[in-house]
Amino acid sequence: MAGKVAARRAALRDTLIDLAEKQIEADGLSGLRARDLAKDAGCALGAIYNVFSDLNDLVLAVNARTFHRLGATVAEELADAPQDPTEQLVIMAQAYHHFAAANHNHWRALFDLERAPEEEAPDWYLHEMGLLFTYISTPLGIIFPDLDDEERLLMTRALFSSVHGIVLLSLDQASSGVPTGDIDKMLGLILRQLAGSKKI
Amino acid sequence: MAGKVAARRAALRDTLIDLAEKQIEADGLSGLRARDLAKDAGCALGAIYNVFSDLNDLVLAVNARTFHRLGATVAEELADAPQDPTEQLVIMAQAYHHFAAANHNHWRALFDLERAPEEEAPDWYLHEMGLLFTYISTPLGIIFPDLDDEERLLMTRALFSSVHGIVLLSLDQASSGVPTGDIDKMLGLILRQLAGSKKI
Repeated sequence: MAGKVAARRAALRDTLIDLAEKQIEADGLSGLRARDLAKDAGCALGAIYNVFSDLNDLVLAVNARTFHRLGATVAEELADAPQDPTEQLVIMAQAYHHFAAANHNHWRALFDLERAPEEEAPDWYLHEMGLLFTYISTPLGIIFPDLDDEERLLMTRALFSSVHGIVLLSLDQASSGVPTGDIDKMLGLILRQLAGSKKI
Repeated sequence: MAGKVAARRAALRDTLIDLAEKQIEADGLSGLRARDLAKDAGCALGAIYNVFSDLNDLVLAVNARTFHRLGATVAEELADAPQDPTEQLVIMAQAYHHFAAANHNHWRALFDLERAPEEEAPDWYLHEMGLLFTYISTPLGIIFPDLDDEERLLMTRALFSSVHGIVLLSLDQASSGVPTGDIDKMLGLILRQLAGSKKI
């Protein structure tokens, strides 16, 4: 009997993640309503809180899927990339841009989920960020062999944040006339200049 | 009589901007309620919509003040800066960081105000952004005299977005242990490397 209950809980959990994922895709994080989810899942409102501690906890589960898809996209693009570490950084940044544009609401949800100031990011989140950061820090280590570990970590974080900032503000401004092609051009401009190659 | 009515409207407008500014400072954009503002201003709820077309329009007026304060802060820091264009960029970026940290909710409201996809950013917003961009593009023109106008504009936008991204993600993560001093270090690392000076 305990096995059946656990299986039913796990099935409800997956159903709720599927439904929340679709809801966020369609209307963004702010469109998510526990009441709608319960209705679509055919369960009582309270049943949601038997499998998730709160709605944020459910969004984190959706975000976990988004992070995995993002990681897979970057890995796929890297597989075809040239050996040149600068070009690898450019290709990853552009893959990040294309993923963000194609999955806008899911991507926004990764960053827009509010945490209480005293609440730390969950371990799996830090782990996923760590994996993405390894993709960046490896070519950086080749481009800048003289950076010590602390500087390389700071540079990796600064570089990811820079790419994120360019994609974020550009996609926001896309409605006021920033052509999408310019975003890839900006990413290439900044990264090639950062890496010290004179291709700009 | 018309003059009296206009003066009363103008006074109510200023009062509402003052109140909204305080409200956003305390609780952020999401804490803003028309009902509370009307109560604090001692006016009817409908009176707000005689002076602003909607609540977003009121937030834009608060954001205009924030942009002016940001511009003044950057100008003040620049007045004491060395003549070196790279160091001017670093000083401005760090001034941006300190302003964002000290005025967190006001600064977030600059970017978190939602616009309908078909709605363009208002002219005054684009004008204020343009002024900030001039501060950046002038030293960039000295560092990279060979960039053509279009490339310089892209580089300016990319550089502002990079600084914004570093400040945004770092302040968000401040609760998970990113020391504030590291943010200034990251900004210096990225900008000095971008400018091709070898001080990192």
